Amino acid sequence: MRSLFCIALLVSCSAGAQTPAEVPASVLENLATAHRILAAEGVLDYLGHVSVRHPSNPNRYLMPRQVAPALVTAADIVEFDLDSHAIDARGRALFSERYIHGEIYKARRDVNAVVHSHSPTVVPFSISQVPLRAVHQAGAFLGAGAPVFDTRGLDSRSASLLVRNPALGKALAATLGEKPVALMRGHGDVVVGADLVVAVARAIGTEVNARMQLNAIQLGTPVTYFTPEEAAAMENPAAYARGWELWESRVRPK
Amino acid sequence: MRSLFCIALLVSCSAGAQTPAEVPASVLENLATAHRILAAEGVLDYLGHVSVRHPSNPNRYLMPRQVAPALVTAADIVEFDLDSHAIDARGRALFSERYIHGEIYKARRDVNAVVHSHSPTVVPFSISQVPLRAVHQAGAFLGAGAPVFDTRGLDSRSASLLVRNPALGKALAATLGEKPVALMRGHGDVVVGADLVVAVARAIGTEVNARMQLNAIQLGTPVTYFTPEEAAAMENPAAYARGWELWESRVRPK
Amino acid sequence: MRSLFCIALLVSCSAGAQTPAEVPASVLENLATAHRILAAEGVLDYLGHVSVRHPSNPNRYLMPRQVAPALVTAADIVEFDLDSHAIDARGRALFSERYIHGEIYKARRDVNAVVHSHSPTVVPFSISQVPLRAVHQAGAFLGAGAPVFDTRGLDSRSASLLVRNPALGKALAATLGEKPVALMRGHGDVVVGADLVVAVARAIGTEVNARMQLNAIQLGTPVTYFTPEEAAAMENPAAYARGWELWESRVRPK
Amino acid sequence: MRSLFCIALLVSCSAGAQTPAEVPASVLENLATAHRILAAEGVLDYLGHVSVRHPSNPNRYLMPRQVAPALVTAADIVEFDLDSHAIDARGRALFSERYIHGEIYKARRDVNAVVHSHSPTVVPFSISQVPLRAVHQAGAFLGAGAPVFDTRGLDSRSASLLVRNPALGKALAATLGEKPVALMRGHGDVVVGADLVVAVARAIGTEVNARMQLNAIQLGTPVTYFTPEEAAAMENPAAYARGWELWESRVRPK
Repeated sequence: MRSLFCIALLVSCSAGAQTPAEVPASVLENLATAHRILAAEGVLDYLGHVSVRHPSNPNRYLMPRQVAPALVTAADIVEFDLDSHAIDARGRALFSERYIHGEIYKARRDVNAVVHSHSPTVVPFSISQVPLRAVHQAGAFLGAGAPVFDTRGLDSRSASLLVRNPALGKALAATLGEKPVALMRGHGDVVVGADLVVAVARAIGTEVNARMQLNAIQLGTPVTYFTPEEAAAMENPAAYARGWELWESRVRPK
Repeated sequence: MRSLFCIALLVSCSAGAQTPAEVPASVLENLATAHRILAAEGVLDYLGHVSVRHPSNPNRYLMPRQVAPALVTAADIVEFDLDSHAIDARGRALFSERYIHGEIYKARRDVNAVVHSHSPTVVPFSISQVPLRAVHQAGAFLGAGAPVFDTRGLDSRSASLLVRNPALGKALAATLGEKPVALMRGHGDVVVGADLVVAVARAIGTEVNARMQLNAIQLGTPVTYFTPEEAAAMENPAAYARGWELWESRVRPK
Repeated sequence: MRSLFCIALLVSCSAGAQTPAEVPASVLENLATAHRILAAEGVLDYLGHVSVRHPSNPNRYLMPRQVAPALVTAADIVEFDLDSHAIDARGRALFSERYIHGEIYKARRDVNAVVHSHSPTVVPFSISQVPLRAVHQAGAFLGAGAPVFDTRGLDSRSASLLVRNPALGKALAATLGEKPVALMRGHGDVVVGADLVVAVARAIGTEVNARMQLNAIQLGTPVTYFTPEEAAAMENPAAYARGWELWESRVRPK
Repeated sequence: MRSLFCIALLVSCSAGAQTPAEVPASVLENLATAHRILAAEGVLDYLGHVSVRHPSNPNRYLMPRQVAPALVTAADIVEFDLDSHAIDARGRALFSERYIHGEIYKARRDVNAVVHSHSPTVVPFSISQVPLRAVHQAGAFLGAGAPVFDTRGLDSRSASLLVRNPALGKALAATLGEKPVALMRGHGDVVVGADLVVAVARAIGTEVNARMQLNAIQLGTPVTYFTPEEAAAMENPAAYARGWELWESRVRPK
C-alpha cells in the first residue's frame, strides 16, 4: 500500500513538474489513457499517437513525447502550438509526424482530438483499390467516405511516407477535408473527433468495420454497404461513452 | 480482505435495494455472468445485451440498464413488461433496442432467454449473399436456417438500423419466426433459447460456426453443409451445461 | 497459504479415493495437463477429450469423466476396457464418444495416446474438397495423408455425426488406418501417437499446419506441399518434449 | 519471499558458473529477453532461436542451448565459434540448426544478430509463388527483396528441410546475400541486423507486413507495394528502440 502511495505521489509530483501548465490533470490522464486503450484494443502498435486540443487555448494542442503508446503517462504530455513547435520540450525527443495533428487542428475548428495509428486491418485497404466503407454501426462515420492520402509525388527530395513537415501535414488535412477518417497509403490512418472519446471510439470502430468488410469480401459475393442515409443515422456518440467506460476499465492500473 | 468484504456487502445491499423484487439472486447473478461470458468469448463488444424472461411472471423480462456487457452486475438488472416499459427504472438509462427482447417474448412462449450481439464473424454474413448455415456441431441449430432481418424500407421516417420501437421489434420477431437465430443486416444477430444457458451457448456457437464456414469458403471449393436431418440430430443442450461451467470459470471474480 | 494447502490435500485425497488404482499419479496428472494444454493452445474448446493407454495393462485406457477439458484434474480420470466400458464409473457421466478411443487402441497396438478435438482450423478442411496436407515441420506427419471420416450412410437409424457406439468407433479406426490423423467431417479430428507428448504435439501441429495451408491458399497461387520424403524426414518427436515443457509452463497452477 | 530470493540466487549462481566468460551480463540478459519477446509477440513458437555475435570477439557468437524460446534465461546461453562448435557445452543439448547463425556471421561482417523463426504468416509466403514485399513501414526493409531458400536438391542423402550442417548454412547465407531477410521454404525465415534490437524489430515487422500483405491480397485487387526508393527511405532503426522498450515491458518478470 505504501509503495502504491509513493508511486502515486511520484507520478503526481513529476506531472506537476513537467507537464503543461494550466491543463487540468484529468485532461492529461485521459490522453494517456487513450494511448493505453488503443494499444490494448489492437489499434496502436509501438508507433502512433493521440492528441487533444488544449482545453483553454484553441491554438495549442497536447500530445506525448516520443514513446510507445502503451507506456504513455500524464508526465509524457507536451504542449505544442499549431505549427507543431513544442512550448517547452525540455530536451525530450518529439514525434516527427506531429504535423499531422497541428495542421488538422488549424484546418478543422470542429476537431478537438486526433488519432494517428497503423491500424492493422485498415492498412490493407490503404494499399488496395477497394474503398473502406461503412458496413456496420461501429464504422457508420465511414459513410462519409474515407479518402486515401498518398505521399507519392508530394516531395521531390524524399520518398518517405511520413508526414514529417508542415507542408505534408497541410496536404493530409486537405485530403481529410470535412471527413472523420483519412487512410494513409502504406502507412495507416488518421481519425478525428469533436472530443477524445469520439476520436478513440472512431479509431476502434474503423478497425472493427475494416475486419467485417474484409470478411464479407472473402465470402465472395457483392457486399451490402450502408446507404448515406443509414450511415448518417447510425453514428451514436452517446454510446461511445459506454465504450470508453469499458476500455478504460481494461487498462486501469490494478 | 476487509475491503473485499465491504465490496461484497455493498453489492449485496445495492442489489437488494435496486433490483427486481421476487427474483432469486441467482437469476440476477447468472444474467450478469452471461454478459461477462459473452464479452470474454468475443461475442459481445461494448454494445449488445442479454435478457431472461421473469422466472415467476411470464409477462415480464429482465435485462440490464444501459451499460457495457463486460461491466454488468446483478445490481444493473431492470424489470420490464412485454411492451418493454421498465417497471421501475429509477432514472437509469435503458437500451433503446429493448424492444428486440419484449417482442420476441410476446411472439415466442418457448423462449426464455434472448441474446442480441454484434458477433464479429456473423456480421459479414449479414451483408453478404452467402447464407450462414450449419457446418459443425457448434452451430447445428443453424440447420433450421438463419433468416436475415433488414430494416430497409420498414420506417419511412428514419434510416436507422436499430430496433428502437415496438413495430420494429415485432418485425424482427416475425422474421425470426420459430428459428433460434436471426441475422440483422449490417448490425449483428439475435439468438434465443429455452433458457439462459442454451441462448448463451448458441450465441457462442453461431460465432464459431461462422468462422468455420468462412474459412471453408476461403479454401475455394464447395462446402459440405449439414443436412436438415444432421442438424436436427446434432444439437445437444446437455453439453451446453459443460460449456457454461467452463465459460463461467473464466469470468469468475478471483 | 493454509487454504492452498487444504485444496492440495483435498485433491490428493480425492485422487487417491476415486482414480484408477495401480496407475502412477504422474500419469493421471500428465493426462489432466494435456487437456489444459490443448485448451490453452486453442485446439480444444469446451468439448473434446484425450486418453492414454493404461501404462501396465494394454487392454485398458484412461480418460476423463464428462467435463470441459480446461477443467480436468487427475481426480476426473476414469479407467475403461477396450470395449469402452468404465471399470468403476461411480455414477459419473461419461463421454458418449469414448468409443473413438477404445476402438483405436484395439486396432493400433502402436498407439498409446489419442486426442479428439474440434480443432477450429481443421474443421474447415473436413467440409472442403481441399485435403489437409503437410506444408510445414509442425505438420510433417500429415505427409502420410489425412483421411476424412464421414458418418453419412453409416447408421440408418440416426443422422448424428458423433462416434457414439462401437461400430462407429471401428469405422473411424478403419478410416484412420496406420495414419497419425483422421479428419471427421463437420466435426473435428482424431490424432494419435506412441505417447501422450507426441499426440498432444501432433494435435497442436495439425492446427498450426492447417492455418498455414489456409493462408497459403488465400495467397491465390499453387502451394508447394512437402514431398513424401520430406514429410518422412521432418517429424522430430525429440523436439516435442521441448514443446511440452513450454506448454506445461503456461498452464501450471501459479 | 525467501523462495524468490533463493531462486534469484540460484539463477545468479548458475549464470556465473555456466555462461560464457567475458560477456557482460546485460548481453546475456538481452539475448534471453529477445527470445521471450519474440515468443510473446507470436513470432517464435516452441522452436526457433536468436543469436548475437560475441561483443568482444567477432569470431564467436552466443545462442541458447536447446530450449523453448519463451523459457530461455541468461544461464542457457552457450558460446560458439563460427564453425558452430560450442566452446564449452557442458553436455547440454544444442540446436541442430546453429549453422544458420555461424555461417551468416562468417559471410556478413555487418551482421551482429540473427533470428530464425517459424513466423506463422511468413511461412505461407514461403510455399506460395507470391513474393513477400514491403507494403508498410513495419516491413520497409523487405523492399530489398526477400529471397526464398529451398533445401530441395541440396543434399542427396536427406530430404530434411533443416539447416543441419555447415554446407546448408553456407547455402542459406548465399541465398540471403546482402539482404536483411530470407524466407525458408516450408520452414520459416531468417532475419538479421546490425544489432539485437534491429534483428528483433525486423522479425516482428516481417510478420506484421506479411499479415497486411495477405489481407490486401484477400481484398482482391492489385496491391500497391513500396517502390525501392520508398522502402529505402522508410526503415527507421531509431524507432526500433521504442519498440524494444514496449516489448521488453510486456515480458519483464513481475
